[in-house]
Amino acid sequence: MGSALLCDWGTTNLRAWRYDPVAGVTLARDFPMGIAVIGREAPQWFADHVRPAMDAETLPALLCGMVGADLGWGGAGYHPCPASVSDLAGGLASVSREGPPVRIIPGLTCRRPDGGPDVMRGEETQILGWLAADNDRSLGARRLCLPGTHSKWATLENGRVTGFTTYMTGELHSLLMRHSILRSEAPADDEAAFDAGLEAAGDGGALAASLFSTRARVAVGEADVGQNPAFVSGVLIGAEVAAVLAEAPTRAVDLIGAPSLCRWYGRALARHGVSAQVHDGADASLAGLIAIHGAAGDAA
Amino acid sequence: MGSALLCDWGTTNLRAWRYDPVAGVTLARDFPMGIAVIGREAPQWFADHVRPAMDAETLPALLCGMVGADLGWGGAGYHPCPASVSDLAGGLASVSREGPPVRIIPGLTCRRPDGGPDVMRGEETQILGWLAADNDRSLGARRLCLPGTHSKWATLENGRVTGFTTYMTGELHSLLMRHSILRSEAPADDEAAFDAGLEAAGDGGALAASLFSTRARVAVGEADVGQNPAFVSGVLIGAEVAAVLAEAPTRAVDLIGAPSLCRWYGRALARHGVSAQVHDGADASLAGLIAIHGAAGDAA
Repeated sequence: MGSALLCDWGTTNLRAWRYDPVAGVTLARDFPMGIAVIGREAPQWFADHVRPAMDAETLPALLCGMVGADLGWGGAGYHPCPASVSDLAGGLASVSREGPPVRIIPGLTCRRPDGGPDVMRGEETQILGWLAADNDRSLGARRLCLPGTHSKWATLENGRVTGFTTYMTGELHSLLMRHSILRSEAPADDEAAFDAGLEAAGDGGALAASLFSTRARVAVGEADVGQNPAFVSGVLIGAEVAAVLAEAPTRAVDLIGAPSLCRWYGRALARHGVSAQVHDGADASLAGLIAIHGAAGDAA
Repeated sequence: MGSALLCDWGTTNLRAWRYDPVAGVTLARDFPMGIAVIGREAPQWFADHVRPAMDAETLPALLCGMVGADLGWGGAGYHPCPASVSDLAGGLASVSREGPPVRIIPGLTCRRPDGGPDVMRGEETQILGWLAADNDRSLGARRLCLPGTHSKWATLENGRVTGFTTYMTGELHSLLMRHSILRSEAPADDEAAFDAGLEAAGDGGALAASLFSTRARVAVGEADVGQNPAFVSGVLIGAEVAAVLAEAPTRAVDLIGAPSLCRWYGRALARHGVSAQVHDGADASLAGLIAIHGAAGDAA
């Protein structure tokens, strides 16, 4: 394989690496221009701004993330599970009609145990990058969680993603803190309130009732509104973790994402006696892009 | 007891009745001035607008609803469960320092089975009014649901409210339809989509995952965004009903509220083999105000 411009282009941010198989990463840069803002202008903005800034005007490019959705550059569909590095490398979408080649990694889709569909776009590259970073991770079964706006829980078997379920946890928290009767701008760093939220979440059922208990605590004088952000985090993450473990118990989970958020997930998992190891999300994206770039061969 | 001005003054609306023990209701009127808008100006607005419009400038007044919260007229706390008509009649808050007497019915508070607190304000009057409307309802155990922004499920035993749990179902639906990735302005009247939402809700666990399936259905082309409002209703109401019945099974539920919303709850309950009977919310409020007015005696 040759040199390439590798990018994780998500909803709110673009992260780019100029990569050389011998020298490794020779330039890394973040651009605060997510697909939610740039939309279908993505191809032009990529040519006008990202390529020059990365000194990569003639390199083939490999992209992952929301850029592949119809609301962005488009063209990258969803690959069905199970899926490995080589499956995705064989399913890249070529999206450049002129200039140097641009290819986008497809998202993943699966059927959940209840028969309904699920989708991810961007996290598949992180998961496969995490797998590629250590050969031992491709042996046997693994449980992975990528916390975030839409948290993903994936099951891996022998180096393939076999299925996953998405929880709207981060978005629900944001909606509730900005627009609901529970709204509060206080920081969500109150460990005691978070633990009380975990307790209120119980076994994960009756989430809409556990959420209202946030309001009731304040109404009867047992808490103040400033505790709402951490308490609601505890309720939402606690309900998510309880539901995941009820469906398929496990003793260890690998977390990929922001350390501050992974810490809360680790705390919720520990309540169930489950150990958690935290891994960096950007490292995983880069490793996944490199692995898929390598498996795909040079763009024609 | 004598004549009185009876009012259900909620978050978005004020409903008033001029009541005479012999002649019954001699005037009924709605005022589009909820506590969410009028706030602490409630006393002045009541004297300036409601009393004259109801030809009730010298009558004692009995009020229920959010008017009793600190963000409204204030002064009416929460009565602990269990609570009957006579308990609430004995716990009225006298809030007028001058002019004819004004008394406000307290809300209710209880401990949920998990130990956390819950509160209601306004629904207690509907529940006790529904009880007072038929003596048979005070015999034995009953399960009542008052669907709405914050749906209430109450247990009644021998004419007393023994406990209740609030689900943020209506508010979550509104947040999701207005501000989230699932947002849609389509009408929520699609029965097939509602039923698919009930199916996705399953046993009520993993609500944040069932909600995301709304998005995944659209992403993979199995549904369009216009089905989101009814599908999300199905997910939220389905999860609520499943959680309630898992905690305490029952074969019949009485629903008090808007017929259009009660219809969805009836549909969700029928899936579990539970029968539902629907009762009018305004009738229940009036009956509760009359019953508590009668039990309290004339204001001193």
